[in-house]
Formats: sequence, C-alpha cells, structure tokens
Amino acid sequence: MLDPRVARRVRLLVLDVDGVLTDNGVYIGASQGERIELKRFDIQDGLGLALLRGTGIGVAIVSGRVSEATALRAAELRIEDVVQDGGARKVPAVAALIEKRGVAWDEVAFVGDDLADVPVMRRVGLPIAVANAVDEVKAIAAYVTEAGGGRGAVREAVTALLRARDEYEAAVDRYLAERGGHDA
Amino acid sequence: MLDPRVARRVRLLVLDVDGVLTDNGVYIGASQGERIELKRFDIQDGLGLALLRGTGIGVAIVSGRVSEATALRAAELRIEDVVQDGGARKVPAVAALIEKRGVAWDEVAFVGDDLADVPVMRRVGLPIAVANAVDEVKAIAAYVTEAGGGRGAVREAVTALLRARDEYEAAVDRYLAERGGHDA
Amino acid sequence: MLDPRVARRVRLLVLDVDGVLTDNGVYIGASQGERIELKRFDIQDGLGLALLRGTGIGVAIVSGRVSEATALRAAELRIEDVVQDGGARKVPAVAALIEKRGVAWDEVAFVGDDLADVPVMRRVGLPIAVANAVDEVKAIAAYVTEAGGGRGAVREAVTALLRARDEYEAAVDRYLAERGGHDA
Amino acid sequence: MLDPRVARRVRLLVLDVDGVLTDNGVYIGASQGERIELKRFDIQDGLGLALLRGTGIGVAIVSGRVSEATALRAAELRIEDVVQDGGARKVPAVAALIEKRGVAWDEVAFVGDDLADVPVMRRVGLPIAVANAVDEVKAIAAYVTEAGGGRGAVREAVTALLRARDEYEAAVDRYLAERGGHDA
Repeated sequence: MLDPRVARRVRLLVLDVDGVLTDNGVYIGASQGERIELKRFDIQDGLGLALLRGTGIGVAIVSGRVSEATALRAAELRIEDVVQDGGARKVPAVAALIEKRGVAWDEVAFVGDDLADVPVMRRVGLPIAVANAVDEVKAIAAYVTEAGGGRGAVREAVTALLRARDEYEAAVDRYLAERGGHDA
Repeated sequence: MLDPRVARRVRLLVLDVDGVLTDNGVYIGASQGERIELKRFDIQDGLGLALLRGTGIGVAIVSGRVSEATALRAAELRIEDVVQDGGARKVPAVAALIEKRGVAWDEVAFVGDDLADVPVMRRVGLPIAVANAVDEVKAIAAYVTEAGGGRGAVREAVTALLRARDEYEAAVDRYLAERGGHDA
Repeated sequence: MLDPRVARRVRLLVLDVDGVLTDNGVYIGASQGERIELKRFDIQDGLGLALLRGTGIGVAIVSGRVSEATALRAAELRIEDVVQDGGARKVPAVAALIEKRGVAWDEVAFVGDDLADVPVMRRVGLPIAVANAVDEVKAIAAYVTEAGGGRGAVREAVTALLRARDEYEAAVDRYLAERGGHDA
Repeated sequence: MLDPRVARRVRLLVLDVDGVLTDNGVYIGASQGERIELKRFDIQDGLGLALLRGTGIGVAIVSGRVSEATALRAAELRIEDVVQDGGARKVPAVAALIEKRGVAWDEVAFVGDDLADVPVMRRVGLPIAVANAVDEVKAIAAYVTEAGGGRGAVREAVTALLRARDEYEAAVDRYLAERGGHDA
C-alpha cells in the first residue's frame, strides 16, 4: 500500500519506457533494406493513464533510448512531455521537466525498472519499481508492482496511486460517465 | 457453466478487441518514417467464430480504439459489423448494432475486459469477462473465461455458449463434415 | 513414449502451421495502407527439422489458412511441399501429398492442434497433438507434446520420433560432424 | 556460482543470437510482396553489455543464421564483431575471432542454447547455457542461467561473470556515475 501522504503530494507521474510501458522487448528488423523497430505497448496501461485526466496529476515520459515507437505511442496517449536521451542521462531530463511544470522533486512519482532509473528514483518523492525491475531498483522503491512492465504495471501503479489518494472511485465514475455508463 | 436459458436467448455475440481478441498488446513503430501498427490475433479464436456459422448467432466487433489491424482481422473472419469509436463510447455503438440486427439487449452476449466495456456489459443479457479483465468487469460478468484474451478466450466463450445451448457437438460435426471428416 | 513400430514406419512428417509451427498468434496490421502479416516461428524447431535430413523422413506443411509468412518460412526450412488451403480441407491436400511422395497413410506422422486437423489425424499412422491442442485433437493423438506450438513442439516431436526409431544419437552426431564438432 | 579463477581469465564474451539474445522467436511475413523479418531483443540485456565497457572484456556475436535484424541490433549495442554463418559452422567463426582479438580459447566465455553451439562450447574456457537450452548444451555448460534467452539471460550471464570477478559493484558505480548518479 502506498503511503497516502506521499501519494497525495504527487503532481507529476514520470514513466520510463522500456521495461515499464513495455516488457523490455524491442522488435528489430528490416524490409527492403529499411530498418523497422516496433515496441509492444499495453492497452490497459493506456486506460490507466486516461483515468488520471481530471485529477491534476500530469504524465511525462523519460526514456534512455531513442525510438520512434515511443514518440508514436506517447502521441496516442496524449502525453505532451516526452524526453528521449540516447545516453540515458535521466536526471537532467527530469530536472528540466519539473522546472517546466513548476513542481518539486518530492511531488514526482517515477516508475522504473533498470539501473538507468536509479539516479532519478533516488531523488523523487515516490519511486515505483515494476515486477521485472533489477534488484538495485527494487531496493530503492517505495512500491513494487505485481504486474510486469507492458503487462499492466503502469495501470497498477496508477490505480494504487489513486486509491492511496482516495480518488480512484471518482476517477472511474468520471470515466464511465463520459462513456454512457452514468445511468447504469 | 453458463445458464442454458440465458445462452439460448443469445442471437448476437459482440466482441471487444484489445484484451479480448488480443492480449492487450499493440505493436507500434515505424519504417521510413511511416507508422506501423500490428496486433496479435489468435487462430483458434477464429475457428471458434467459424463454429458459429449456421447457428443463427451473429458476430460483431465494437472497439474503443481505431486500428486498421482490427478492420483487417474482422474482414478475414467475415465479421460484417465492426464499429471502432476512438472515444470508447460503446453503448451507442451497440445500440445501433442491435437496432440494425433487430435483436434486443437481452439477446446480446458481450465479451469485454476493461472499464470501457462496463456500460455495455450492464445492459446485455450475457456479459462475459476474459481472464485478464479488470475487477470491475469481472464483478458484473455472468461468465469469466479461464483463457486470456488473444489466448483462446473467445474460443472458450463460443464453446461455453454452444455447450450451454446443447449445440456444440452439432457445430463441430458440421465443421468437420465440410472438411472431409464426414466419413471418419 | 512413441511406439517404436509405429515410429519406424514413418516416411513423411506433415506439419500444420498455426498452433504447431507458431503459438496460434498472427500479427496483423498495416503501414501506408498496405497489409502486413507476420507469424512467429521457432528457431529450435528449425534445427529439429534439420536433424531429419539424412534419415529418409520427408517433411511437408499443410495449412488451412493462406499466408505468405508460411511460404517464406517453409522456403527457409527447405520444405518443398507446402499446401495452403483457405478452406481448411486438409484430407485432399494430404492425399495428394502422399500420392506424390509414394507413401501410404500409415507411413505419415501429422502434428496438429485444432478441429481442422481431425479428419487427417484420424487417417495417418502417427497423429501427434501439441500441448495447446483442443480436446478433440488430443483425444485422437498417439502422442501429445509437452511443449506448445511455436515453443519447441515440433522439435520435441522430431526428437521423440527419432528416439523411438533409435536414430536420435546418430542424427545429432551427423549434425555436429557437419559443423566442426567431429573432433571434439 | 561461477568459478572465480575461470571468470577472471575471460577476455572475450561471445554470444549466440537466436535463443540467447532472443527467445528463439523469429517474426516472418511480408508487406507488398517484400519479405519482413523481425527479432525481439531485450533492453535489459543491452544494459548488461554496457556494464562490460571499461572491464577489458570484449563482446562478439556468432550466429548460425543470417539476419539483418541481428546486424541492426549489434550495431546499436556497439558490438563490432558479428559473424553470421548460414551453415551454423561456429568453430571456424570463433577461431577467426580469437585470432583477430589475440585471445586464447580458454579466455573465451560463450553463451549458447542449441546443438549448433556444442562444438564451440566444448572448446571455450567458460561455456554458459541459457535456461531454454537443449539438454546437450546444458550438459556441457559450466553455468546455466535462470533467465531465458531474450528474457534477461545475457544480463544474468554478465552479472554472474562480473560478480565472480568481484567487479560488479565497480561496473554499476561507473555506469551510474556517467548518468548523474555520482552525487546520490
């Protein structure tokens, strides 16, 4: 269970991509000599991020690898802030984000899985590890999801965050009302 | 086990796509700057839908996300009614379908997995949840499949439906007879 | 364990594709309006089929669905006889194959997973079901693999077949000798 | 646990591709009549190989199958030596590599999964099998990973190798320091 006081402070949820929004798989190949790269994202994760709309919690993506797949999925999820740094230097990336958004480090929740996430996770208020995270990441996490990355980990993190803030039911009701479930 | 009286009333089987005909994965990427999107469908599910031919039960697809992958697979499965609504407003989509088909809400079976399916599932006669459905969906389902979406859940739902109607053996015999198994 | 007398009679191994050489998944989508379809094959299965070279057992593919993916993989595996019938009428397909090859029905081993394979499996000498086969297929199989389709089921079937014929060690030795392992 | 004396002798880590850097899956199909082939690689494996930089251990890839996917992933991982031999003759391939690199057979660690790897694994100083390796490969391995190929097996092999050399903590510290974790 997330600490309600920590959860209520969150104003920005930052997500790593590989291993968090995906199961760490990257599908690489070619056709007619042109490179193709695909990543497998999870639709239930997407609905989780939709639940955050209207809660005042923003969402951003910070990846240590550059991929058009990430940009395309972020656009579909209407995530405006997407930072992809090929050198996996995530601290300056998140520092720039929190300055732009006007939030403090302890108002940030970050979901990560690997060593490249450790420097950021040591700074944020709510570090979350996915089930498939390496030991070093789990060791510094305030919450470890039961679901794996790309298999509902982000949905679980969002649900846990909203529940700890006592805002989950309201978010679900709002989501259903917008889709014709209000009179059910 | 499905209630035989409820099962016998079914005249239309409506399927969600992501998480039901797939395991919620969506493969996104690019080649030469052009977006690519793939979904993984299950061939055993397809044979299940073939078993419905000749039973008088129609099949339709209602998705809360727009994807060419869905349209392509539906065409292959010879499913004529495919509604894709980017806003995930499935109640009006199914309402239009049942009017067109001349069936009533309690003659509809719907297979779903996530919150976007809840408003429809509260209305239909036979709401079915897949193994990977969220708690809110399982809570209102008359039947929960053991198989996951994209891993045989639709096949299992069709088999359970036909068995409860005492029509499964006949459907299998019909399928085999058409493929040279009649004299075995 | 396979019956050695039945195994020794086998001169042709016929493989279904979806659910046998794959895990029943088919990846469908589009790029620039052009349809894309991929299937996931297993490399260890491929090595299993390579072990058959020199044993006198031929290999053929009979699929109930038409897919360029199947043709491409068959070419890579150097399987000459590939029949794809969109109507899933496999009995005439296998009948034509055995005539062309000059073998009898009881000299054929067939690996299948679904109802479309039942008519053929009732006729062949050695019907094999994969772990993920439907009940009707397992019920008529002389052997059920522990591995799933696309996850080593064909490799396991080949190994079991060669072991029952007491030819497995020789096949492995032959394979290794051709790759520099003869002097180890 | 790896034998520290054997581990400390390693100067070159050679990786098989299919079943080691992947889970043996190969995604084959077509679009507009052009062949497409994808392989699924693991991002955590990639970070493991990054940990080797600065340790004096080189990395090379030797595959028994020719695929553009392998070349593309190797380039991304900055692995210079990539040998793809369609005949799966890996002994001469590794022999050429060790000559070029000026290392001896007993200074090589090799990670493999299938029969084609056996001749090489019998020669190298540190033969490692992945969890999904066939029995013949596991039987001659000094270490068998718990993780499967394409699911962290290479990351686990690298970690085990560095731990046995007592160099793991330093490698992690170096990796973190380069990414802003030095002051944490």
